[in-house]
Amino acid sequence: VQWHAADLLDENQARRLMQIVAPSHWLHLAWCPTIPGQFWSNLENIHWVRASLGLFEAFEQNGGQRAVFAGTCAEYDWDFGFCRENHTLLRPTTLYGIAKHSLHGLLREWAAQKAISLAWGRVFFLYGPGEHPNKLVASLCRALIKGEIAHCSEGTQRRDFLHVFDAATAFVALLESEAQGAFNVASGQANSVRELAQMLGELTGRGDLLKFGLPSPEAPFVVADVARLRDEIGWMPRYALEAGLRQTLNWWREMNQHDETTH
Amino acid sequence: VQWHAADLLDENQARRLMQIVAPSHWLHLAWCPTIPGQFWSNLENIHWVRASLGLFEAFEQNGGQRAVFAGTCAEYDWDFGFCRENHTLLRPTTLYGIAKHSLHGLLREWAAQKAISLAWGRVFFLYGPGEHPNKLVASLCRALIKGEIAHCSEGTQRRDFLHVFDAATAFVALLESEAQGAFNVASGQANSVRELAQMLGELTGRGDLLKFGLPSPEAPFVVADVARLRDEIGWMPRYALEAGLRQTLNWWREMNQHDETTH
Repeated sequence: VQWHAADLLDENQARRLMQIVAPSHWLHLAWCPTIPGQFWSNLENIHWVRASLGLFEAFEQNGGQRAVFAGTCAEYDWDFGFCRENHTLLRPTTLYGIAKHSLHGLLREWAAQKAISLAWGRVFFLYGPGEHPNKLVASLCRALIKGEIAHCSEGTQRRDFLHVFDAATAFVALLESEAQGAFNVASGQANSVRELAQMLGELTGRGDLLKFGLPSPEAPFVVADVARLRDEIGWMPRYALEAGLRQTLNWWREMNQHDETTH
Repeated sequence: VQWHAADLLDENQARRLMQIVAPSHWLHLAWCPTIPGQFWSNLENIHWVRASLGLFEAFEQNGGQRAVFAGTCAEYDWDFGFCRENHTLLRPTTLYGIAKHSLHGLLREWAAQKAISLAWGRVFFLYGPGEHPNKLVASLCRALIKGEIAHCSEGTQRRDFLHVFDAATAFVALLESEAQGAFNVASGQANSVRELAQMLGELTGRGDLLKFGLPSPEAPFVVADVARLRDEIGWMPRYALEAGLRQTLNWWREMNQHDETTH
């Protein structure tokens, strides 16, 4: 592995990077950070659309052949709940979803005309080591480890959760394949937020700290069909939800001990 | 009127222009030329998305208050035929439609966050002086004036035709209003291509030159609801179809005489 440092939002730096590396294969994950409550409407989403189009142009001009980009489940119309790549209506309502969906629409046509092979991985609900401490799984892990009350919604909304390590293997599998178009990057499993919280309660023995509250106004069901990823790419997730949560809990325990040691 | 020359696809020139003019109101019509058979999939559509986002940023940074952009009826899903701004599904299938629709999605959020007033005029089927000679009305006018056979499809597909002068007054009316969101720029009338061709045949007395052919594979019906433009903006078209075609025929006759005089 060779690392190159560059600010991809700076068009000149981005172009120079593509000239130096001249990659045949390109996995594009860079975007504004998914800080809870901010990234959905962050105007940086627009800057990343512009930057990504500029990068794609440089990729194409420097001999690029195969590109895989990260999209999002927020491209789908969540009123339909069960998300299938080539069936479910795409009608994003957030700037994040609009930006990703717009980028895909433009790149798909661009790639087709330049004979570049393009796949688009629509990421569902990730959790695991390294995520923002205020996101759902991270905040539950931190509270339960520290013995603090964890406030939740009623938690009836069901989501498709995937461990971040499995998302990584899915993107690598996509990059190494020749398959084109949109692929859900997800587990295909529907778990309620309440089930997930209770699993963490059992794993820590502190289910008593979970306080479920008011009904959530969120979409009741957002789950992926993963047939394309499974059948066309041959990818399978390594972590079932409980195993993935255990791994994540252990990571937060280590972080916590590290914090206590250094303070 | 003061003219400024600049290549808007050159980010530095575009930014400098916005700095020099620092407009409070901005009507953005610039895009790649609508050359029949080319513009639907022209990759320049993507460059115009990038350029338009850069221009909008410069407009905002230089004190801009009100912007009106040209969108397209190709943003709608034509399977639904009757196009209403806030009802009909938006599912463009061409790069031109995707590019315009993507730009609107991004700008709408950007404008809202920066308190810029934004309207988006979705242009339907324009005709009139100055259009590309191979477009429908232009090619029919030229053939009938010159006494040449005019080959058409069966012509049963119905469209919403608008004279380009009326499109201009609609955009000016939009710019001078405070209304936001999408507005169809159209006549609201449904005429078949066959009806239009026959009107030109009658106006020239050369209907015998019209040769209608095979059924068209195109969408059977693409017509706008113009209630928003009429009721919220108070705009009315000046030209009914026949009057608009007469005006256009006269313009092509003058062009033709000019050609004959100069050759």
